[in-house]
Amino acid sequence: MKRPKWKKAEFEEIEYKPLNIKELLVEMKDISELIVDLAYSAVLFNSNEIGEEVRYLEVRMNKLNYQIRMMAMLAVRATDDAEKLAGILQIAEAAENISNAATGIVDLLSVKHSHPILPHLIRESDENLRPIEIYAKSSACDKDIATLNIGSETGVRIIAIRRGKDWIYGPGKTTVLKAGDMIIGRGPDSGLQTLKDFLKGKIEVLE
Amino acid sequence: MKRPKWKKAEFEEIEYKPLNIKELLVEMKDISELIVDLAYSAVLFNSNEIGEEVRYLEVRMNKLNYQIRMMAMLAVRATDDAEKLAGILQIAEAAENISNAATGIVDLLSVKHSHPILPHLIRESDENLRPIEIYAKSSACDKDIATLNIGSETGVRIIAIRRGKDWIYGPGKTTVLKAGDMIIGRGPDSGLQTLKDFLKGKIEVLE
Repeated sequence: MKRPKWKKAEFEEIEYKPLNIKELLVEMKDISELIVDLAYSAVLFNSNEIGEEVRYLEVRMNKLNYQIRMMAMLAVRATDDAEKLAGILQIAEAAENISNAATGIVDLLSVKHSHPILPHLIRESDENLRPIEIYAKSSACDKDIATLNIGSETGVRIIAIRRGKDWIYGPGKTTVLKAGDMIIGRGPDSGLQTLKDFLKGKIEVLE
Repeated sequence: MKRPKWKKAEFEEIEYKPLNIKELLVEMKDISELIVDLAYSAVLFNSNEIGEEVRYLEVRMNKLNYQIRMMAMLAVRATDDAEKLAGILQIAEAAENISNAATGIVDLLSVKHSHPILPHLIRESDENLRPIEIYAKSSACDKDIATLNIGSETGVRIIAIRRGKDWIYGPGKTTVLKAGDMIIGRGPDSGLQTLKDFLKGKIEVLE
């Protein structure tokens, strides 16, 4: 068994990189929204693959919270700054708490006896969330989302893309897909299956 | 100042009503997804109205968690049941933790000094979330969502409806709107404004 990606991420050294507080907070907000959906999906599909994405995001959230605290402390020059930044740190803390709670859902995947009942319990929405990897042989590589007509042909919205260690949340029509990307798609089961075949290069075009 | 709705809800006596564990868990999952979005929206729009919906949902979440624990304990007859139900209680607990963390974001609304910076910080999505009340004089009353063409005319999706003390999460095309409903709409600002005028009876038809 290969070592899960999030384990590697967890042990990377935390470095303080000067970033923008706004960018950090936007990413934390985006992660906290995505991670809740992903965590439920992991349990409903009994999917370690989705569970791994949740843990990966949680590790990233910890790092972002560390960075935003560093940024905030360095930015304070006066009482007025401190008041504004305390509010920002409170949101950052809540975002991390949401992400920790979501990880608690995923912990169920490692409990052998408890989960078989869960998929039947709450999987009833006609929209699902699935991670799909893009293979180099797919004709989707190096094309943007609008050109590929993914939405109109499959009914799937791409809500996030993981590219190596980076995430793109809420990609737009002009976002270009790359070989090796992991997309998170939300849509009907049949559309997700078609998109999976397309992104793995099993079918040439979506139509 | 009138007493906020959630205060009343908080002090209502918690009663044990025999419900279905599945229904309870589905509602807890739905609330935990909705409450995160609403909490950020409350802070971004500096809106006590949205904040109040968050607190209302949080009180409801507490009650559901109490009920699901009761149900689970009463349902256990053997070790096998206990294992399955422990997993369900773990998800329920995580859902409540998510909701508590979301309420932590809304607490910022009562801190006078900290929030003015926040709207400018992270409000950049072109989609927003807004609660809109339906007035009795609106021609939307007693019609279903599909008949009104809300989606196609305004670009707004109705993601939840509060009707008195009850919530409808993810309403469908055949869901009928009633006077006094509070809908939660997600969509572009212009569409939300048009829908608001329609649901308050300021405009007669959407077109």
